[in-house]
Amino acid sequence: MAEKGIEIETVQVDLGSGEQFADAYREINPDCVVPALQLDDGSCLSEVIAICHYLEAKHPEPALLGTTDEERARILMWNSKVEQQGLWAAADAFRNAAKGLKGRAATGIVSYAQIPELAERGRDRVEHFFRRMNGQLASNEFVAGDRFSIADISALVAADFASWIKLAMPEDAENLKRWYESVSSRPSATA
Amino acid sequence: MAEKGIEIETVQVDLGSGEQFADAYREINPDCVVPALQLDDGSCLSEVIAICHYLEAKHPEPALLGTTDEERARILMWNSKVEQQGLWAAADAFRNAAKGLKGRAATGIVSYAQIPELAERGRDRVEHFFRRMNGQLASNEFVAGDRFSIADISALVAADFASWIKLAMPEDAENLKRWYESVSSRPSATA
Repeated sequence: MAEKGIEIETVQVDLGSGEQFADAYREINPDCVVPALQLDDGSCLSEVIAICHYLEAKHPEPALLGTTDEERARILMWNSKVEQQGLWAAADAFRNAAKGLKGRAATGIVSYAQIPELAERGRDRVEHFFRRMNGQLASNEFVAGDRFSIADISALVAADFASWIKLAMPEDAENLKRWYESVSSRPSATA
Repeated sequence: MAEKGIEIETVQVDLGSGEQFADAYREINPDCVVPALQLDDGSCLSEVIAICHYLEAKHPEPALLGTTDEERARILMWNSKVEQQGLWAAADAFRNAAKGLKGRAATGIVSYAQIPELAERGRDRVEHFFRRMNGQLASNEFVAGDRFSIADISALVAADFASWIKLAMPEDAENLKRWYESVSSRPSATA
């Protein structure tokens, strides 16, 4: 939204106090995960990727999902790799170790105990993700090529998750650090 | 491809013998996961969601990603829920328990030991997924509404993964069973 200059009224859901499980939010998204977007007809859309496609369709500029079929496919490919290798790995590491998330190791309404081995696997996978990104960014300004896209936004979220669990980028990952410096200083990154 | 009647030469990659890790496939997808689609310019596209968008753009009929912005968003929302709650849960359960996957508990090039507790969590999550789908299918013919979509294809794959690990649909999940009967008997399901 910030990248596109879209102004939509926002309501913060206090995840720390479990507001996502209260009836008011459960009516918006029965799966009790954020974010959700209320459409003009009153219906609610959840899941980040669905909301991104919807906002791109209604506000095409600047394009964050590409402008040709090939570019869109390439961006979605990289976004999916970032989700699988970075975001979910960092989430595994965080949710299965954070003191405040005991019994809430998976998102959603069901209570699950933390699995320390999964937190460890997640940390290791994030390190590989950093190396993978550093390689990709050696010959590309942004994750999916020469244009900023949702793949960069997902990767930035993954990198920020990683910093929560004190996982620093490898010292010698110069391309990754150059990219992080660049994307985290965009006005949208702090919006 | 089968739903759309698209004919593209296919090459099977023998996952059992580790052909995805051989140089020939590593050049196609350095992350060593299937599937991948070679485009006319010789470049290769990986990640299921990217390939689905590309094929939909080039072969719009029949639509598997919706025909309006709202319908596409709804389908992508359900597809994401199915991936998170069904597919990845079933994959956790399968990969962390199967005898043939010791040391390969995560997809990709890095070797990870199986985590039995994660297999158990995955089984439990698949059961909740079945209940969730049964509820959604009470008032919808298909997962994302009244039209067959990629969300049904993802849910069918999740249900088939579940059957590999001997997880049956709940006896009283009538809507889910009606749906499964219907979608698994489509010609595309055995193509």
